[in-house]
Amino acid sequence: MTDDHNPISGTESFLVLMKIFIAGIDGYLGWTLAQYLTARDHEVAGNDLFLRRAWVEETGSHSAIPVFSIEERLKAFQESYGKSLDFRKGDLLDYEFLKSYLTDFQPDAIVHLGEMPSAPYSMMDQKHAVFTQHNNVIGNLNLLWAIKEACPDAHLVKLGTMGEYGTPNVDIPEGFFEVEFRGRKDKMPFPRQAGSFYHWSKVHDSNNTMFACKIWGLRSTDIMQGVVFGTRIDEMKDDVRLRTRLDFDQCFGTAINRFCCQAVIGHPLTVFGGGQQKRGFLPLRDSMQCLAIACENPPEHGEYRVFNQFDETYAIGELAELVQTVGQEIGLKVTISQYDNPRTEMAEHYYNPDRKHLIDLGYKPIGNAKEEIRLMFQDLLPHHDRIMAKRDMLVPDIRWDGSRHRAGVIGHPGQVIELPHS
Amino acid sequence: MTDDHNPISGTESFLVLMKIFIAGIDGYLGWTLAQYLTARDHEVAGNDLFLRRAWVEETGSHSAIPVFSIEERLKAFQESYGKSLDFRKGDLLDYEFLKSYLTDFQPDAIVHLGEMPSAPYSMMDQKHAVFTQHNNVIGNLNLLWAIKEACPDAHLVKLGTMGEYGTPNVDIPEGFFEVEFRGRKDKMPFPRQAGSFYHWSKVHDSNNTMFACKIWGLRSTDIMQGVVFGTRIDEMKDDVRLRTRLDFDQCFGTAINRFCCQAVIGHPLTVFGGGQQKRGFLPLRDSMQCLAIACENPPEHGEYRVFNQFDETYAIGELAELVQTVGQEIGLKVTISQYDNPRTEMAEHYYNPDRKHLIDLGYKPIGNAKEEIRLMFQDLLPHHDRIMAKRDMLVPDIRWDGSRHRAGVIGHPGQVIELPHS
Repeated sequence: MTDDHNPISGTESFLVLMKIFIAGIDGYLGWTLAQYLTARDHEVAGNDLFLRRAWVEETGSHSAIPVFSIEERLKAFQESYGKSLDFRKGDLLDYEFLKSYLTDFQPDAIVHLGEMPSAPYSMMDQKHAVFTQHNNVIGNLNLLWAIKEACPDAHLVKLGTMGEYGTPNVDIPEGFFEVEFRGRKDKMPFPRQAGSFYHWSKVHDSNNTMFACKIWGLRSTDIMQGVVFGTRIDEMKDDVRLRTRLDFDQCFGTAINRFCCQAVIGHPLTVFGGGQQKRGFLPLRDSMQCLAIACENPPEHGEYRVFNQFDETYAIGELAELVQTVGQEIGLKVTISQYDNPRTEMAEHYYNPDRKHLIDLGYKPIGNAKEEIRLMFQDLLPHHDRIMAKRDMLVPDIRWDGSRHRAGVIGHPGQVIELPHS
Repeated sequence: MTDDHNPISGTESFLVLMKIFIAGIDGYLGWTLAQYLTARDHEVAGNDLFLRRAWVEETGSHSAIPVFSIEERLKAFQESYGKSLDFRKGDLLDYEFLKSYLTDFQPDAIVHLGEMPSAPYSMMDQKHAVFTQHNNVIGNLNLLWAIKEACPDAHLVKLGTMGEYGTPNVDIPEGFFEVEFRGRKDKMPFPRQAGSFYHWSKVHDSNNTMFACKIWGLRSTDIMQGVVFGTRIDEMKDDVRLRTRLDFDQCFGTAINRFCCQAVIGHPLTVFGGGQQKRGFLPLRDSMQCLAIACENPPEHGEYRVFNQFDETYAIGELAELVQTVGQEIGLKVTISQYDNPRTEMAEHYYNPDRKHLIDLGYKPIGNAKEEIRLMFQDLLPHHDRIMAKRDMLVPDIRWDGSRHRAGVIGHPGQVIELPHS
């Protein structure tokens, strides 16, 4: 594929327009993707049960960027993109709803974003662990069956997570690897070593999805995505109703997003443990680019392929310093504190995942995390008061041992964080 | 450990008596294990919801050997063993029931046999696939939480299956292996490649269990068990109320058990495909011996260990010939037919699993499959009419592609099986 034919490079005359179904279309990624794909002239439909809104409310928090009602969102969508979005409220656990929606829409691709995406939420207690695995595993299993029965040619783009792999002491390939064991060879799934009941639910999904491709000839791209950060894509322009959510609470606020919110109100950036834990990260706009590439380059029938989807790997401490640097450039006073780690994870470890498949298909990383963080500050500073109102949400208390106990600053466990008042 | 100290060798004076909880105590293995462990002077308790009885009825079949009501079973148990069995009817999906039972009983070990154990049952349709994964994964997840909250020192002996591994082209170690990949080394979980939604549910369980040991310090032995065959253990003596069930239908009748029932009524032994598929097998009495060894030799806190539990590996065709030979010795006319395979599985493959851990702990295989099959015929011949009444159950129609279509004899797809009339 030459650059001219690259589906992402802007020469869209070669693009085959597709019908794309998004499960979880009201979420952080789902709402953004609906706009990104529509702007690329695809026909988009999707469902949501608004559980992300309910979960964040359950934690006692709210999105830093205001989230409009679905009615207002759909109205703004129509005004901005000149077409209506095919939306139905409904649950992936409701098999008849799901099957009948897919039967009606007949998608070419299905992007499955309709899962509970938080590790701490899944570790809270028995009820939340069970909810997470039930919701995610059965929802995805229903989706596999519904594809088989309603639209067997559709390509399932399933969102997994880089966290499925854990942090092994060897390179992390994309899903599969050649093994030599006692003198014999085989190509096998790369072992997964997830770090929470949420991450394990994604492993269970990956396994079920791989199996469905094998026995039924379905086709799927299983996306092991890194941690996404960012507040917007260009397509949203200046319509506040089109903005996506941005969470900063301990359950749904991921590292860079939470750091930026902390910097905005002068709260120390909360680095857990020594900050040497490494993970893969990518900007929201890169995530959109990658998901579009996956949709527009489907695998063969019966093929199950795995994409590691991230831009760069960073140690958590490095990211905090990056946010600090950008914050200071725009005049914020940003401090960093190390908190005792509520998670069970390796403090220091090898980390070298591949990310070749998407690059081969044309993924061009924006590659400028600082610029992305600068944009985030632009979007978040006006919402200083919303973050300040929920500043108690910025320090975690959900621990991997099942207890609830607020993390303290390492070396100063009783330290009270001094915050400027709004 | 010398032979004199071997917990299984008969010198039981060294044995530490334990409180052992059996989840699924009314089933094929559970009811047998309750007696085996009680005969070894352990204190046994357990739950059941009688779902195995309901599932077999749902398939339209029944056990070849009559199954008595739980009331009759418990009465016979009291009479034979001189103590009552602590039994409560209840569901592993009912967390409060489970937690309160474990809180009251305070077991040293928990043997988890309370899952839906059939591959074809799980492949029938969306409803059965979802039921299987929900029942098994959430039941086991509840059990992990209940152990953590009610009896964190208890040792979980979890029944998995050799089917979790699939049929890789390399040796199958016991759960973990040393990997060298691109010049770096790590010890990792051995990749699982299961062959049905049921088998995958067991993989999901294994993953959740490994994780619970890691983060909470629980201890577990995860048993990758081969296919069990056999009608009894010596401890049942001649009390028909103490006998365990023996299923022969397409869902719950496993290979040797089904072959023996077929031989008893003169039905051809139904070998699927070429019969070259290899699997691990063990007699019922070996399964009991191994489970007792696992209970009586607990791992350390935080340890998750995997035992491959089988006596020998056989090709399915070999097993049919073994049953044929023994059947002919006792005067039965036994034929073998190859049926088109309703499953998606490799016709021919490498298969070389380890089984060192149990041997190291004292497992002594009976090693006489023929003698075991002879005993089975003794027990099954009196129930000729019960099998004959359900002979339609002996040929499968549940296919891995989701359809229902009765398997035909290879080369003679329309052949009607001639059966002697009872």
